[in-house]
Amino acid sequence: MSDLLRVAELNAAYAAAIDADRLEDWPDFFVDDCVYKITSAENHKRGYGAGVMYADSHAMLRDRVTALRSANVYERQSYRHIVGLPVIGAAGTDGIPAETPFLVARIMRDGRTDLFATGAYLDRIREEAGRLRFVERIVVCDSSHFDTLLAIPL
Amino acid sequence: MSDLLRVAELNAAYAAAIDADRLEDWPDFFVDDCVYKITSAENHKRGYGAGVMYADSHAMLRDRVTALRSANVYERQSYRHIVGLPVIGAAGTDGIPAETPFLVARIMRDGRTDLFATGAYLDRIREEAGRLRFVERIVVCDSSHFDTLLAIPL
Amino acid sequence: MSDLLRVAELNAAYAAAIDADRLEDWPDFFVDDCVYKITSAENHKRGYGAGVMYADSHAMLRDRVTALRSANVYERQSYRHIVGLPVIGAAGTDGIPAETPFLVARIMRDGRTDLFATGAYLDRIREEAGRLRFVERIVVCDSSHFDTLLAIPL
Repeated sequence: MSDLLRVAELNAAYAAAIDADRLEDWPDFFVDDCVYKITSAENHKRGYGAGVMYADSHAMLRDRVTALRSANVYERQSYRHIVGLPVIGAAGTDGIPAETPFLVARIMRDGRTDLFATGAYLDRIREEAGRLRFVERIVVCDSSHFDTLLAIPL
Repeated sequence: MSDLLRVAELNAAYAAAIDADRLEDWPDFFVDDCVYKITSAENHKRGYGAGVMYADSHAMLRDRVTALRSANVYERQSYRHIVGLPVIGAAGTDGIPAETPFLVARIMRDGRTDLFATGAYLDRIREEAGRLRFVERIVVCDSSHFDTLLAIPL
Repeated sequence: MSDLLRVAELNAAYAAAIDADRLEDWPDFFVDDCVYKITSAENHKRGYGAGVMYADSHAMLRDRVTALRSANVYERQSYRHIVGLPVIGAAGTDGIPAETPFLVARIMRDGRTDLFATGAYLDRIREEAGRLRFVERIVVCDSSHFDTLLAIPL
């Protein structure tokens, strides 16, 4: 299978896990020594490191899920990711680079649905323990205005 | 071609037929002895069978199209499906299982566009008479609040 | 690689260039002697030629980019294309025909995000100078109501 298809397949499984509220599966899409970051296009362009959320290990991603489960806020709404096809770069020693557009709709308890976020995933991907995993996933949101509580992983 | 690509191709053709108002082509995406159901995530989770719409044969799907054509309500707006890539399960005797996210935008006559529905297709797919067809398509909408008249197939 | 995948890859690169504001790369997705047109579903159905925007050469596309850069209006907001999978027709002497659904979200400076446009690309595509390029791209928007200034290529 081509890298394009394999990465597309990875993205589809990633989105399905989050949208079905299988958050405990989410950290396993990453290698142990990973970087996961949510930031805005403007911050990313200016080279600001911080962003809205930052994790640099598999353990931190698991902690994030535990926090979400105990906070319980995520139950009030659900989300739906629509993920486009990736643009794949040349594979290097640090994995396959990929850039993939996404849109996330948010469905409120009262039925209203809105556009929660749009943006692009900037990824480096590597095969480990038999499947593709994210070495780095930078979630660059188009909007600089975030909900104060980002209830779910993007 | 991989199952992933073949199912993605099927979904693309399915969405194109509906959005181009070729509703008469819609039943042929299903085998004769099919199940087609529209339900909400909440009802689906609780195991409620009913849902918003239910058909268990190709003939019922054709009847549905006839009803839509005579009701004529579908002309007041148009729809646009954006369908993600499927997550494919292991093929069994009852076909290939697939789960695919979707988003449908509705375009009103006055030009306003809104998010009409988001959700996931839960499918079982089989090759019959030379092409892939749906044995079962359960349309699980994220929102529990539907327009009273679901004008089109999802 | 199948035509389906190659066209999907072309569409992904096309959308990424526009959304990353690499407008200068946009004309190179077309052959020299191309047709690019933005129109509405209603006008397209009735066979009206005109539409919202029309270009019939690579040079006209470049001029369009120059005009956008000098007008500078495009900086006030950003856009995000989500492009579905194409339905590919039988390749003829005039290239591969493809029909592809799209959705474009618009992100305002104040952070609000709305559905800017939905529709379908009606394309004829040909390999030239080592990569696929559009011989013809007709952008058929579902809505007949456009912003008076279409700031970006669709």
